[in-house]
Amino acid sequence: VEEGDAEAAYDRVEPLHPADIADLIELTPAEQRPALVDAVGSLIDGEVLSEMNDWVREALIESLDPHQVAGMAAELDTDDAVAIIGDMEEADQQAVLDALPPDDRAAIEEALSYPEESAGRLMQRELIAVPEHWTVGDVLDYLRGGDDLTSDFWEIFIVDPGHRPVGTCQLSWILRTPRIVSMTDVMKREQTLIPVDMDQEEVALRFQKYALISAAVIDAAGRLVGQITVDDIVHIISEEAGEDILRLSGAGEGDINEPIRLAVRTRLSWLIVNLATAILASAVVDMFQAQIAAFALLAVLMPIVSGMGGNAGTQTLAVVVRALATNQLTDSNTWWMVARELRIAAANGAALGTVTGIGSFLIYGNAPLSLVFAAAMVINNLAAGLGGVIVPLTLDRFRVDPAVSSAVFVTTLTDVMGFFSFLGLATLFSVSP
Amino acid sequence: VEEGDAEAAYDRVEPLHPADIADLIELTPAEQRPALVDAVGSLIDGEVLSEMNDWVREALIESLDPHQVAGMAAELDTDDAVAIIGDMEEADQQAVLDALPPDDRAAIEEALSYPEESAGRLMQRELIAVPEHWTVGDVLDYLRGGDDLTSDFWEIFIVDPGHRPVGTCQLSWILRTPRIVSMTDVMKREQTLIPVDMDQEEVALRFQKYALISAAVIDAAGRLVGQITVDDIVHIISEEAGEDILRLSGAGEGDINEPIRLAVRTRLSWLIVNLATAILASAVVDMFQAQIAAFALLAVLMPIVSGMGGNAGTQTLAVVVRALATNQLTDSNTWWMVARELRIAAANGAALGTVTGIGSFLIYGNAPLSLVFAAAMVINNLAAGLGGVIVPLTLDRFRVDPAVSSAVFVTTLTDVMGFFSFLGLATLFSVSP
Repeated sequence: VEEGDAEAAYDRVEPLHPADIADLIELTPAEQRPALVDAVGSLIDGEVLSEMNDWVREALIESLDPHQVAGMAAELDTDDAVAIIGDMEEADQQAVLDALPPDDRAAIEEALSYPEESAGRLMQRELIAVPEHWTVGDVLDYLRGGDDLTSDFWEIFIVDPGHRPVGTCQLSWILRTPRIVSMTDVMKREQTLIPVDMDQEEVALRFQKYALISAAVIDAAGRLVGQITVDDIVHIISEEAGEDILRLSGAGEGDINEPIRLAVRTRLSWLIVNLATAILASAVVDMFQAQIAAFALLAVLMPIVSGMGGNAGTQTLAVVVRALATNQLTDSNTWWMVARELRIAAANGAALGTVTGIGSFLIYGNAPLSLVFAAAMVINNLAAGLGGVIVPLTLDRFRVDPAVSSAVFVTTLTDVMGFFSFLGLATLFSVSP
Repeated sequence: VEEGDAEAAYDRVEPLHPADIADLIELTPAEQRPALVDAVGSLIDGEVLSEMNDWVREALIESLDPHQVAGMAAELDTDDAVAIIGDMEEADQQAVLDALPPDDRAAIEEALSYPEESAGRLMQRELIAVPEHWTVGDVLDYLRGGDDLTSDFWEIFIVDPGHRPVGTCQLSWILRTPRIVSMTDVMKREQTLIPVDMDQEEVALRFQKYALISAAVIDAAGRLVGQITVDDIVHIISEEAGEDILRLSGAGEGDINEPIRLAVRTRLSWLIVNLATAILASAVVDMFQAQIAAFALLAVLMPIVSGMGGNAGTQTLAVVVRALATNQLTDSNTWWMVARELRIAAANGAALGTVTGIGSFLIYGNAPLSLVFAAAMVINNLAAGLGGVIVPLTLDRFRVDPAVSSAVFVTTLTDVMGFFSFLGLATLFSVSP
């Protein structure tokens, strides 16, 4: 797209939506990004920054002056500004904060004081709150009057004299109500209040469950301190749902813009853990070297038993991890779930055992071998089903993210059980050529 | 919670939000559900039904009279009614449609005529559209006047005489503008229009990218036919992002309320495919039976090579599948991505090859064996990295969902390459005890 002609580039980028400008910069190879950024310069405002991938943004911000960053951040709502500044390194952060107007600075510093990934980081302080005794007309006059009010709101919060929320009112209700009606007659009293220290994953689940467009954030004393709008939640829902697949595979964050060095470090440390478990499984095979030397066909068939168990275990694991992430699996249905997965494992194991038993008998004509092969297949499927549900549930109970660590345990289990049941039974029943 | 005392159950359930009632019914064991449903009867309205899990809802609807279902559906916006009726079997569907008032019936039949998972199914026909020449005052009077207008809207669409959208206006802008201002001066002309046949996944990506709260849906002629609101999109974002993990593991829908019979069928068919590939990999081992019989240690180490390749391949796969799902990976950065993954694979392979080479030498003191082991590890890591990125990209190009089928190809590749490189090199260099 860009070959030196800066002005042409500017003209092309100018009409784009900030999200598209951010995408364009992300898709540009890293070496060409500085040239593109120079060319389109002033078009990269706070909106573009906040739409940008974390890694790309970080590199870009490092090339900017703190005053420029502060200027961009000041245009944004607190939540977007905090997201950008919160990601910066401590020293750069301070430089940007120092360059901000005092008001914005105080707001952002307060937001940064909340833990990462909490509601306090997500919320914007800009919102519309009105007292209980107002009428619809009062609200309309207030909104038309104040010039420094936000335009980014989807509902109006009604608060008591202690600034505690007592109700909420969609804008469409106000628009459809005569001016003289009191706000307390239009508002809905039941509303979902978000404590300021709630984890963002929990916030996202609330938004999903109750189909919220925005929600009031309250502090420990129940006072209204901010609002969260659904457009900020949509990113979190997508990230939280998508990151389980990356965690389960040990790919860490798995962002394609992550520096290679970091990607190698994350993935390699996970592979080393897997190596340890692979050695454990191979130690089981090691116990049966004599049998394998006498009957090498055992070594041919054993990966089938362990591999099929691994596949079945991964299936169960994926279902359980998803059910835990979406709050579908709770204490009340744990045992029902274990029973359900064991029934599925038994059915799958019986089917696979029959197929592999008969198949191997037709090929090798060795009945003891085929019986042992089929039995090991059934045993390992049951182990996979049980492990696939017990492991993540146990980790979840101990407050370890089941998506991160379950796969290691389950595949180790199916490898060990697969090799042990097959080679062990073969030894026990002296299966031979 | 429920033990025969129907009245107490009713009193407890009565104050709950529809989404909570739906959750309660889902968490109740299937056998006790009819009793609970009887007890709370009238509390189960259309809202509750539309919040309910598909499988649970289907079972519940079967126990209801078509007239009851029609009554519930009539209360809902078209999008929710369509979601419920669209899931029913043909004959039941017809019975409910017949029982609906003619207006609702026509609207729902039209929606059902759009393909499943398209924007036409998601949209609601209820929306507020006003002509270009109106002022803010006209809009306010119109909204306060009409009794049969929807209250579920977040922006107002401005249309030309041909009912084609020309702009959109957030409610907050209207509230902050004097009555005499013309709508064309308040509205934003750039808006994201959703074609009625767009796939829901694409719709969800648009909402995410442009932080939309609602969007206009247009037919082939560009006429405004409905609107989609973000609350219906959050479910889709979460489902689409979450289902990749289930597809990649071959667990199908993976819903915990899916009947066991269906779950077994889905998972078993996937396991049978995996069995075929496992047999393919074991055929490779079969070629080297003589070497294994002569040196059984080869059978001990070979699962480590194939297993580590499988893990590395799954990591790459997860990253690529996520990047494809979020539109981060396009034609313009395909080769950059391949190069990136190969560099990561080379780094990981070198590290793992060194560790396993040195480790095995310390244990077994067999230099040729350790060199072959290390070399196979490097080769299989490269194969994993290459396969992990090429396979999903190729499937995506042929419009096959990479999440569904990539894992089979990649693990087959790493198993075959793992066994072949290790046993093949061992044979080539006559590695022996």
